[in-house]
Amino acid sequence: MSEYKTFNADDAMAFADEHSELFGDHSKLTAEEFGDGNLNLVFRVENDKGTSLIVKQALPYARCVGESWPLTTDRARIEAEVLKMHRRFCPEHTVEVRYFDPVACAILMEDLKAFRILRSELNAGKKFNHLAPQMAKYLANTLFYTSDFIMSSENKKAEVARFLNPELCLITEDLFFTDPYCNHERNNIEPSILEKAKTLWHDDALKAEVAALKADFLSKPQALLHGDLHSGSIFIDSETCKVIDAEFGFFGPMGFDVGSLLGNLLLNYLACPGLHDFDDCSEQQSFLLEQAEQLWQQFSEIFAELMARETQDPALENSLYQQRFLRQVFSDAAGYAGCELIRRTVGLAHVADFDSISDAGKRAQCQRNALKLGRELIMQRNDLNNISQLLNVVRYQQTD
Amino acid sequence: MSEYKTFNADDAMAFADEHSELFGDHSKLTAEEFGDGNLNLVFRVENDKGTSLIVKQALPYARCVGESWPLTTDRARIEAEVLKMHRRFCPEHTVEVRYFDPVACAILMEDLKAFRILRSELNAGKKFNHLAPQMAKYLANTLFYTSDFIMSSENKKAEVARFLNPELCLITEDLFFTDPYCNHERNNIEPSILEKAKTLWHDDALKAEVAALKADFLSKPQALLHGDLHSGSIFIDSETCKVIDAEFGFFGPMGFDVGSLLGNLLLNYLACPGLHDFDDCSEQQSFLLEQAEQLWQQFSEIFAELMARETQDPALENSLYQQRFLRQVFSDAAGYAGCELIRRTVGLAHVADFDSISDAGKRAQCQRNALKLGRELIMQRNDLNNISQLLNVVRYQQTD
Repeated sequence: MSEYKTFNADDAMAFADEHSELFGDHSKLTAEEFGDGNLNLVFRVENDKGTSLIVKQALPYARCVGESWPLTTDRARIEAEVLKMHRRFCPEHTVEVRYFDPVACAILMEDLKAFRILRSELNAGKKFNHLAPQMAKYLANTLFYTSDFIMSSENKKAEVARFLNPELCLITEDLFFTDPYCNHERNNIEPSILEKAKTLWHDDALKAEVAALKADFLSKPQALLHGDLHSGSIFIDSETCKVIDAEFGFFGPMGFDVGSLLGNLLLNYLACPGLHDFDDCSEQQSFLLEQAEQLWQQFSEIFAELMARETQDPALENSLYQQRFLRQVFSDAAGYAGCELIRRTVGLAHVADFDSISDAGKRAQCQRNALKLGRELIMQRNDLNNISQLLNVVRYQQTD
Repeated sequence: MSEYKTFNADDAMAFADEHSELFGDHSKLTAEEFGDGNLNLVFRVENDKGTSLIVKQALPYARCVGESWPLTTDRARIEAEVLKMHRRFCPEHTVEVRYFDPVACAILMEDLKAFRILRSELNAGKKFNHLAPQMAKYLANTLFYTSDFIMSSENKKAEVARFLNPELCLITEDLFFTDPYCNHERNNIEPSILEKAKTLWHDDALKAEVAALKADFLSKPQALLHGDLHSGSIFIDSETCKVIDAEFGFFGPMGFDVGSLLGNLLLNYLACPGLHDFDDCSEQQSFLLEQAEQLWQQFSEIFAELMARETQDPALENSLYQQRFLRQVFSDAAGYAGCELIRRTVGLAHVADFDSISDAGKRAQCQRNALKLGRELIMQRNDLNNISQLLNVVRYQQTD
């Protein structure tokens, strides 16, 4: 293909046919588009034996809140390359990219049609004991193996440059760290919590901490992040989970990926009283806190073992340094989790966890709790010594 | 010029003639090579009216300790581009680059023949009250204007990539942070302090702190650093000083540049008892501590004012954050100054401040003091609240 054109179903079939061995001359192919069309076209291409692949094509714009803005199709390259790199280090939990075409900005990838989106499952009250252990493994391996502990500094620098991703990073920089803390037109604030939201705009102590978290997001390229690891970027079934949608990937602070996922577990935890009846709520919340605890506990255990066993830079082999490094990742993760709670409540991009709560009073209460817990996590992040202390803050907030 | 060839004097004259207006058809030109020949050829090209320019050409290798290793000539581009960028933000104190040829890897630049190298002047007991104020201005402006406070995140990311400089960074990564803390063949340790030096190799508490400083050097691209701001990279005369030799430039932690210069003032301070008689020593030491104090004080005042007045990112406008940011730069600077003291004492690259002390006993005492003070600065850097406290550590060390 010599120039970019938007795929139709026939193009998607031809693309899948050309770049895979699954569709022989005598197979009948079908294709259906089922993306939300905001950023990408997503086709399922299937043969007559029921075997299917996904074709995902980046559109040269983002449609959001009715407004259209140009957005680099280079994000398709970023997504394909991040997923390939992460799959190298954690094949079990990263979706497989079969082929990437830089002109069409299209990715041919594994179809996870037997899987469901984690967010929908959590909102429906489903429980998965394999979630935290598997995501801990994904996080520890993808972050460690793309870090200064193991990469040569020359290779690491080249990779930082290959994954700069300025346009998509800017979206996060704005939506995560700037908009929620000022009266920005992009914000999406329900009238019932407007007064609470306004207190953020004048909370200088909080804004100082968020500034530090943003500065690290801008200038702490510790590892190749997924960059958007919320519960809508994770597919899950009864046995395994797989990460998708890595177009926000870049080299950034490790705590951002860990904190994004932790924050999404906590968002769902806070939404439980609005989503479930009393008994189900209590069970679901216990499940979520257990998962949050295991996520950090197992992540830190695997990461510590990788540091002890695999570190290549002799100056970083010091075990006291390694302990402190993990401690810092924990503080960062707590801070970024707090930012996630706040920006999903008052920022542009809400989540179904809250928005699907039909009772307006309950919804507002959940949102107020999110703002309060978000603030606590950000402010207390350097004083929290471990995940148990962090979860005590969560429990305390809820009784408030 | 279509391919790289090593310049002789005639080539240097032709290069200067072609790329400047100072040498007319009827001028007689002369050229002399006066570099040390380790890394670069340096020619002074002069016309018959006494006007001169410098031609500096990068050699495709570094000669060091009798051994030759390949070294990218891309460092000439880095040097030219860093100097141009720094001159944009502090023209008074950055040497002027007139022309850069990427094929010849040669820079045509201002000749500072009326200036002297700061290190030689300090070793000779010269005092310059303009040193600290001018270098504070240079540091504050070059670091602020290449930081996230003012650059758009997109532009900053592109600049980070343009100045990756992996090969020269690796030299610093090794010589500054790794070699001195292990039994490395590149180390250069006088027998009289070998026992003291060996204690570094097993000092796990110190090595943990040095690991953190190295990790920041690897992954904290706060601003475009000079990267090698010791007192041999500063030319000075009775009125002004100018920074040269920016081939180690890259985006790194601001405290590295500040700490390198601070460390060099402290190295000279520690060398005074070996370089001067009793009265001169005392006077020179007072001068050096005053300069160290002013360097930080004025740097932080100018930087604080720039943050308050010029910050473009609204999330970084918070004044509490800005205070804490400067506090962190101070801690980093103290730590990197400590590393400089240690690596100049036991590492590959020594300095004349110590090496020119002829009395072996005094030299060994100065070196022991440097190891001790270096360790204190690194270990205490997060507890030192201001430059006065830091200088008290220096004074206390000396009486030891």
